[in-house]
Amino acid sequence: MSQLAVDQNEAPEGARELLLHTASTIMREGDIVDISLSELSLRSGLNSALVKYYFGNKAGLMKALLDRDMQGIVHAVDALMSKEWDPEARLRHHIGKMVETYYETPYLNRLLMRLVRESDPEEAHRIADSYLSPLSRAYDRLIKDGVKQGVFRKVDPQLFYFTATGACDRFFSSRLVLKHCYDTEALTAELRDRYREHCIDFIMAGILAHN
Amino acid sequence: MSQLAVDQNEAPEGARELLLHTASTIMREGDIVDISLSELSLRSGLNSALVKYYFGNKAGLMKALLDRDMQGIVHAVDALMSKEWDPEARLRHHIGKMVETYYETPYLNRLLMRLVRESDPEEAHRIADSYLSPLSRAYDRLIKDGVKQGVFRKVDPQLFYFTATGACDRFFSSRLVLKHCYDTEALTAELRDRYREHCIDFIMAGILAHN
Repeated sequence: MSQLAVDQNEAPEGARELLLHTASTIMREGDIVDISLSELSLRSGLNSALVKYYFGNKAGLMKALLDRDMQGIVHAVDALMSKEWDPEARLRHHIGKMVETYYETPYLNRLLMRLVRESDPEEAHRIADSYLSPLSRAYDRLIKDGVKQGVFRKVDPQLFYFTATGACDRFFSSRLVLKHCYDTEALTAELRDRYREHCIDFIMAGILAHN
Repeated sequence: MSQLAVDQNEAPEGARELLLHTASTIMREGDIVDISLSELSLRSGLNSALVKYYFGNKAGLMKALLDRDMQGIVHAVDALMSKEWDPEARLRHHIGKMVETYYETPYLNRLLMRLVRESDPEEAHRIADSYLSPLSRAYDRLIKDGVKQGVFRKVDPQLFYFTATGACDRFFSSRLVLKHCYDTEALTAELRDRYREHCIDFIMAGILAHN
């Protein structure tokens, strides 16, 4: 395979997904929001010219990774909101899924902020409209439903969006704290499960009406 | 003043503090965790050779800024823990102060993680021992006191440290979300006050025992 160019016939099946998967793994393991193309090539076993073929350049690869990860979240939240569940069951489920998502993709919020910051206004708007606004609308509906039914205390859905996501994300985005203060690796299934239970318990206690 | 070197007699009084203050302002306004020395010189009105004189280089300036900001927090938490307050009053006060701190220095957690990540092991340990461990011990004592007195629900102090700080920080570290979804600037005193009340209300509801 040429180092300089790839045509469609040379691109192995599933290569695009493998590049995204490998980039995700590198950023997750290294606790970083960047990759080197030579490491990507080495770890995936794929020619780095395929990055150019599929994504144009590294920035395009990062954008495609954000799209992959955020589309998964927006679809899951849409599916949740279309279920006939009560607000408490919905929120409880959502918090657990959010912790699992940040465990799988601990770089996600930093990647999102970085791409919004570094993109031109048009692309920043696309990201906001495609991913941030749908999530914000879902929170709005979910929290207002619960408040109306008397299940939730009167909480501002917009501010709650920040406290809840910040709480669920912190453990994984600040895992250097765990490493250096407690000699603990945050990315283990056991700690993920403990943190998920803690977040569900803590956030639900913070929002449920205590009649 | 020479562009190349500065001796003590040429360094204006308060220049070190002004450089740190200006660097902090630039990162706060720009929502970034980096500065250009030429912008620092322009905004402070000081010769950028003073950076070399006081801090060695830009990395040294960043380290001094982290020290300035984190020492302030550790002193404030020490003072809080030496007061004869009950755990509920202490935590309520601490949450409010935490939101105010992230409003003033929204870059702080990212700067901390960046310097821990980029430092050699010895310096990473110094940061952890000087700032992270004292805060972790204070949380441990504060939460355990409250649980023992039956004021707080049985919460893991270590996990609570992440949920509470993550909740208080998110609004200011993710202010691009506000900007692009709601056309709102997060760094206003009015929004700071609303978010502070929200965080106090939400976190206290999440941890107080409801007998």
